[in-house]
Amino acid sequence: MQYQAIGTIHTPYTEATGSPYQPVETEERTDRSFCIELDELYIDGLERLDSFDYLYVLYHIDRVKPSRCLRVTPSWTGGKITVGVFASRSPIRPNPIGLSVVRIFSIEANRVYTSPLDVFDGTPVLDIKPYIKDLDTKNEANYGWIDELPDRDHLILHIKGIPHGY
Amino acid sequence: MQYQAIGTIHTPYTEATGSPYQPVETEERTDRSFCIELDELYIDGLERLDSFDYLYVLYHIDRVKPSRCLRVTPSWTGGKITVGVFASRSPIRPNPIGLSVVRIFSIEANRVYTSPLDVFDGTPVLDIKPYIKDLDTKNEANYGWIDELPDRDHLILHIKGIPHGY
Repeated sequence: MQYQAIGTIHTPYTEATGSPYQPVETEERTDRSFCIELDELYIDGLERLDSFDYLYVLYHIDRVKPSRCLRVTPSWTGGKITVGVFASRSPIRPNPIGLSVVRIFSIEANRVYTSPLDVFDGTPVLDIKPYIKDLDTKNEANYGWIDELPDRDHLILHIKGIPHGY
Repeated sequence: MQYQAIGTIHTPYTEATGSPYQPVETEERTDRSFCIELDELYIDGLERLDSFDYLYVLYHIDRVKPSRCLRVTPSWTGGKITVGVFASRSPIRPNPIGLSVVRIFSIEANRVYTSPLDVFDGTPVLDIKPYIKDLDTKNEANYGWIDELPDRDHLILHIKGIPHGY
């Protein structure tokens, strides 16, 4: 399967600074540090996207070394557990396609400003889709193996990028 | 960007029968009609996936004709609205990558049995990822332009594939 980038993601994260494990939740809607810039030829595809509050972003994870290993030890667990790559959101996976859910802050021409995205600056975007209440909000979802970790509540703050005392 | 299928999705839907717009919600956990069959070489990647209730499935939409049109009129709206392709979940999009959220019913070797998937039998899978409560359950999400449709409540049943009187 062959796909072409439809644009580029702009974030403050570089390989030097690192990037969070998952999108950081924020209410600061004036933050313009995170932006999905589509190629201009796709501008008509954005019509009415501003009516949605949340967005799925699919991107090509271009800054991790591929690995044949199918078991991963997520770093945010402090090395406490090893699971299959498909039971994780690890960026090192057979097809390096990333998926993040973010808030839409504003849309200006071919630029979609969003809440923080957990990717490096310059990451190629594959697709964006509206996150639709009911279809995508699964209230009976669970935490899977994360529930078994001894410091679960603390680690969930880590995953969500919420600042907290140690 | 080039990706390889990691397996195949089995469903009862063919191009002759058609497929629903989105996954149908069901509680019938004994239904074995929907299954993601991974290539055997990926079996270790499934370790502990059974601890999750919900799953993201990313697949290659291989049975729709590509189109250069960036505006779509979703058929379930009865032709009532035209929106940008990125403001829709239309399968006809610049990169034909599909995303569905389904329940995990059971995992047996390289087969993940799930609640109904809205894809044709034989669709190639690109990736599966756990749907993690809090990260992915956005209670403040909205319905976007769907809210403006005159028969909104009825159409939401359509999208979700819930049987109902007409």
